[in-house]
Amino acid sequence: MDILIVNPNTTASMTEKVRVAGCQAAGAGTVIRAVNPADGPESIEGYFDEAYSLPGLLAEIRRAPAADAYVLACFDDSGLDAARCAAPGPVVGIGEAAFHLASLIAGRFGVVTTLERSVPIIERNLHHYGLVARCSGVRASNVPVLDLEDPASDARGQVSETIARAIRDDRAEAIVLGCAGMADLARDLTGQHQVPVLDGVACAVRLAESLVALGLATSRRGAYAAPRGKRYAGIFAAHAPR
Amino acid sequence: MDILIVNPNTTASMTEKVRVAGCQAAGAGTVIRAVNPADGPESIEGYFDEAYSLPGLLAEIRRAPAADAYVLACFDDSGLDAARCAAPGPVVGIGEAAFHLASLIAGRFGVVTTLERSVPIIERNLHHYGLVARCSGVRASNVPVLDLEDPASDARGQVSETIARAIRDDRAEAIVLGCAGMADLARDLTGQHQVPVLDGVACAVRLAESLVALGLATSRRGAYAAPRGKRYAGIFAAHAPR
Amino acid sequence: MDILIVNPNTTASMTEKVRVAGCQAAGAGTVIRAVNPADGPESIEGYFDEAYSLPGLLAEIRRAPAADAYVLACFDDSGLDAARCAAPGPVVGIGEAAFHLASLIAGRFGVVTTLERSVPIIERNLHHYGLVARCSGVRASNVPVLDLEDPASDARGQVSETIARAIRDDRAEAIVLGCAGMADLARDLTGQHQVPVLDGVACAVRLAESLVALGLATSRRGAYAAPRGKRYAGIFAAHAPR
Amino acid sequence: MDILIVNPNTTASMTEKVRVAGCQAAGAGTVIRAVNPADGPESIEGYFDEAYSLPGLLAEIRRAPAADAYVLACFDDSGLDAARCAAPGPVVGIGEAAFHLASLIAGRFGVVTTLERSVPIIERNLHHYGLVARCSGVRASNVPVLDLEDPASDARGQVSETIARAIRDDRAEAIVLGCAGMADLARDLTGQHQVPVLDGVACAVRLAESLVALGLATSRRGAYAAPRGKRYAGIFAAHAPR
Amino acid sequence: MDILIVNPNTTASMTEKVRVAGCQAAGAGTVIRAVNPADGPESIEGYFDEAYSLPGLLAEIRRAPAADAYVLACFDDSGLDAARCAAPGPVVGIGEAAFHLASLIAGRFGVVTTLERSVPIIERNLHHYGLVARCSGVRASNVPVLDLEDPASDARGQVSETIARAIRDDRAEAIVLGCAGMADLARDLTGQHQVPVLDGVACAVRLAESLVALGLATSRRGAYAAPRGKRYAGIFAAHAPR
Amino acid sequence: MDILIVNPNTTASMTEKVRVAGCQAAGAGTVIRAVNPADGPESIEGYFDEAYSLPGLLAEIRRAPAADAYVLACFDDSGLDAARCAAPGPVVGIGEAAFHLASLIAGRFGVVTTLERSVPIIERNLHHYGLVARCSGVRASNVPVLDLEDPASDARGQVSETIARAIRDDRAEAIVLGCAGMADLARDLTGQHQVPVLDGVACAVRLAESLVALGLATSRRGAYAAPRGKRYAGIFAAHAPR
Repeated sequence: MDILIVNPNTTASMTEKVRVAGCQAAGAGTVIRAVNPADGPESIEGYFDEAYSLPGLLAEIRRAPAADAYVLACFDDSGLDAARCAAPGPVVGIGEAAFHLASLIAGRFGVVTTLERSVPIIERNLHHYGLVARCSGVRASNVPVLDLEDPASDARGQVSETIARAIRDDRAEAIVLGCAGMADLARDLTGQHQVPVLDGVACAVRLAESLVALGLATSRRGAYAAPRGKRYAGIFAAHAPR
Repeated sequence: MDILIVNPNTTASMTEKVRVAGCQAAGAGTVIRAVNPADGPESIEGYFDEAYSLPGLLAEIRRAPAADAYVLACFDDSGLDAARCAAPGPVVGIGEAAFHLASLIAGRFGVVTTLERSVPIIERNLHHYGLVARCSGVRASNVPVLDLEDPASDARGQVSETIARAIRDDRAEAIVLGCAGMADLARDLTGQHQVPVLDGVACAVRLAESLVALGLATSRRGAYAAPRGKRYAGIFAAHAPR
Repeated sequence: MDILIVNPNTTASMTEKVRVAGCQAAGAGTVIRAVNPADGPESIEGYFDEAYSLPGLLAEIRRAPAADAYVLACFDDSGLDAARCAAPGPVVGIGEAAFHLASLIAGRFGVVTTLERSVPIIERNLHHYGLVARCSGVRASNVPVLDLEDPASDARGQVSETIARAIRDDRAEAIVLGCAGMADLARDLTGQHQVPVLDGVACAVRLAESLVALGLATSRRGAYAAPRGKRYAGIFAAHAPR
Repeated sequence: MDILIVNPNTTASMTEKVRVAGCQAAGAGTVIRAVNPADGPESIEGYFDEAYSLPGLLAEIRRAPAADAYVLACFDDSGLDAARCAAPGPVVGIGEAAFHLASLIAGRFGVVTTLERSVPIIERNLHHYGLVARCSGVRASNVPVLDLEDPASDARGQVSETIARAIRDDRAEAIVLGCAGMADLARDLTGQHQVPVLDGVACAVRLAESLVALGLATSRRGAYAAPRGKRYAGIFAAHAPR
Repeated sequence: MDILIVNPNTTASMTEKVRVAGCQAAGAGTVIRAVNPADGPESIEGYFDEAYSLPGLLAEIRRAPAADAYVLACFDDSGLDAARCAAPGPVVGIGEAAFHLASLIAGRFGVVTTLERSVPIIERNLHHYGLVARCSGVRASNVPVLDLEDPASDARGQVSETIARAIRDDRAEAIVLGCAGMADLARDLTGQHQVPVLDGVACAVRLAESLVALGLATSRRGAYAAPRGKRYAGIFAAHAPR
Repeated sequence: MDILIVNPNTTASMTEKVRVAGCQAAGAGTVIRAVNPADGPESIEGYFDEAYSLPGLLAEIRRAPAADAYVLACFDDSGLDAARCAAPGPVVGIGEAAFHLASLIAGRFGVVTTLERSVPIIERNLHHYGLVARCSGVRASNVPVLDLEDPASDARGQVSETIARAIRDDRAEAIVLGCAGMADLARDLTGQHQVPVLDGVACAVRLAESLVALGLATSRRGAYAAPRGKRYAGIFAAHAPR
């Protein structure tokens, strides 16, 4: 089985980190590729960055040889619905993946993300997925995304402290890490806080494998119908649906 | 990996059917066992049967050698929370499993179950899981559970007709089959109706495998804390938590 | 009029306590009987105990001479729906009873229960009944159920302190006591905290009387249809619906 | 025990009808009085009539010798919150009363009211009470309120036909009659349609008795605090809270 | 264009204050009139005062020469639906106006009102309008309405302090002032707290102008159908709809 | 006052149509400019087109001389949140504008849009705005966006027929036209169907004017904080926030 992880930002070190996390999570016989666009923001922090990540994200999906399934490695699940319309195989976002699996092992899960500005995006997603009632709260650790790539920063300490608050003050029974760049922290933090700590990349890879193994494709009726053929102008002309 | 499927009714032919469905869905290297209680109803149709299925269901979980994960093969997900408190590994219900995976491949999914009396139970579960907003409706096919075991019945035709209505009248983009006894129908019905048709047993087996592979255990804080030690009287004395 | 209170745990002293509370609440001419199963947990604290209480609860309902109405004396309202299917007369749970009456005398009511593990069960019930928007919060006093039977414990003090917090921090305008074992505390606590404090046993008895007086029986369409006749195996064989 | 039923419209024949319904529902030892204002609309059909009914309604409550409890006999529950602030004893609306009791005997109840313009008012109340999820739908029978007082009209037939549709098309398991003027129809319609049919007047009287018997008074914290003393001008000067 | 602002309480100084606020907000060419009833409470603080303000409010609307649109200058939006049925032009409440505009400029807005007893009324309105999910919380400043008219009171300081708490503790991104009597404070508080602070009177005047300019009238189907002709008795006889 | 309407698709004739609609709606003294991107889809029909419209949309906002306010002329409100982060003045989407104003003049409004694939996007927006409870349903007329530009098509007839169904079957009290390309149809359809028919372009222009007139700017706390400075790679390098 062949899974393509698309990191929608342009930071190659993060792409490599999610590739490694994906490989560690994947079953035997699954081939993981990870790509990122050449065009777009170096990190996605809020609505504006999100908007500029979408064309690159979709281009990577359509440019690559068809994979059996796709994983979107931005915790905001930006572009998820558009990707479902475009990709030949099923698509799983790392945010939704973690929320769905967390709700199978805990009555209430907390989310610990990077910056305050990502909180409303995540809350909106939780509402849309319907899982908001299972979430004990979304907390920002005030760690910028790229600090997670910098070993000298105190990113890990701040994330851990925020987890402690979510458990104590919000009665979180499990913790979802709210950024693809935190993929390498889950195991240690589970041990430290004695509750399940979920990394969305690993969750999404396993859910993508499951969909493929079960022969479950994205429905082409309604929301995720293939894009209608039409003209796109200017720099996006080549990206028009046929 | 070792997964125990518990069919909470006492009909061995259904247990065998879900075992086969589980084996077909499972990954290489996964060992599927399937059991059913000696005590309880021959089928679960409504709240009353559900109540009498729980002690047998929990007894099977505790009697068996510890598995890596557990699948509850009743679409009503009856006893799911109690099983989570009791089982040494993660527990996945076939109803919730199908709902979660359906929401990854369709904007709205419909549910087609057996009898009218199961509709409110399923609706309540959808509310509790939070996925009700993704469901286009729960429809009864008016097929009793055990008719699904009888090749002479028109069970399959009635299920198919109800699916057609869910697609046409409710704008369902995918269909969840609402009974463990329908596990063998999913593939054919997918081809026939040209939308994804999901069987909960297969979905649950893959989700259970995913949780195990990711090292995700049921949280022991809050809702799913291990049962407190206490005395149980009478015929249940031996089942008391230590 | 004849009301049967079923305490679904096996602790006779608690059965006697709810019988006394029921008698004090009942109208002239109402005969209160109170029973508890011989089989099952000595107290119900969480999902696991709940599961083992259901067969005994239903057996008591069916074994007793038909009453005009039934009260289920576990605040989690466990088995309520199954009991409605089985009982010849209307059935009222003490949790729902207190929530419904509290919403007639206060804009928002708080719930004070025993242990943390009961909080999610009560929250789920409030969601199901629809009354969650009227609830200012569910708080655990960290008093195990059987401590309420022990005069030497500080159960009462802890309950009172938790009430004070619910009024001050959650803006509760009335308090629902979240355990059948607190039935004897309501009057004193009302005086002490100067807000209405509701005991579910008393509420349920009066609601049951009301339903009987008004000739209102459980509907036999849909959710609470009488159980379908079928075979039950093993120790439950005698309990099968005809 | 002494219960005052206030019919907030000025039609004395309807006041007498609800008095009779109240007496039939009341327990032994309960004295039922029924009054209506001298000032205001002859029937309440929509928001505008409602507004003009409130001063008269409140005046009747304050003019009468204090009762043990109060019943508001308009199905829209108009003025209910204001009445709770003003009345010395608990206050029950006939709409809320029927909704609460219906949710104890049926999974889903339908409401059959008079005119289309009352439907949004009832729907809003159901949302506010939280019981909307238990309601299968609110249907208008297109019978004006005062036609219910006219034996020559086909009011009863139209109500019955609307009930039949609610049962067949909305899967209603019980029916709430959505107008005080339908109080005399409940028993016959129950027999005819073989589902429980609830009249709000009877329900409210029994709930009011229950609150009194249990010593449950309206909370004076928050929403239902007694009105602050202030000046009222003009024709309402004498009605100012002290 | 001609807009009639109706202050439903009888305090002329507040009517003048809202008139000034309305004039400042209005576009060139808009004529603002402001009236208050002769009959009713001097301020509206809770459900009871609200009830006594409605006849005067409606009488002012019908007595005045027809305006192009109407603004109801009580933050509780009391009588809004009745006014829509009665007024010849569109009607905007100052509460709803501020909520709708706040949701266009902020992810979450907080509300700062006068007394605790108004909080549940505002919360209910937010639920009804659907905008509750955009509200970070409703806080009382414990300032009685008429203190806002008294320069010697510390009303302004208490409002400002409550705003600070809403921003810090509730993560409010904008603030809605929850009383018509605060209309003159918005500009200063915006500067002081560096978030948008909205006054409902100004918002409602602009929304009313917008509806008129766009030719948008209140729908006469369903909820806001014109009142049915009928008899009103006693002091309200002259107010009966024809 | 200066308002910039951005049509996020690249069809100039539609830009001109919305400019004309904007001018007709605008107040005296308001200057309306309308632009569309050079890069992107010729129409926006579903998630995929939406993704490719965002960079062009944001580029137009930042390229133009600062306007006092911005209107996004795609009914899906695509890019609205990103635009709020980027634009120097307040931003109003035509979808949200119509929903908010419709809820001021009708108890329930229906939405009539183009293709089935836009329905879930609009439903999601209604959920996010909180106004879903006020919406009686979203219906597709099965008219592709660009057919609205073709006088030879039967677009108008199909839209009108769909409106008739929304009024009759969904009890819609007002109708929101769900596409910028329908801006010229509102007046005629209002006359024809005798309910208010709202065009989002006109509504948004008036709401934008209102915000400007009231001095209400987008909050810079939380969700709509200005984008953080960072590097964008490739073709988007010049668009990076400073």
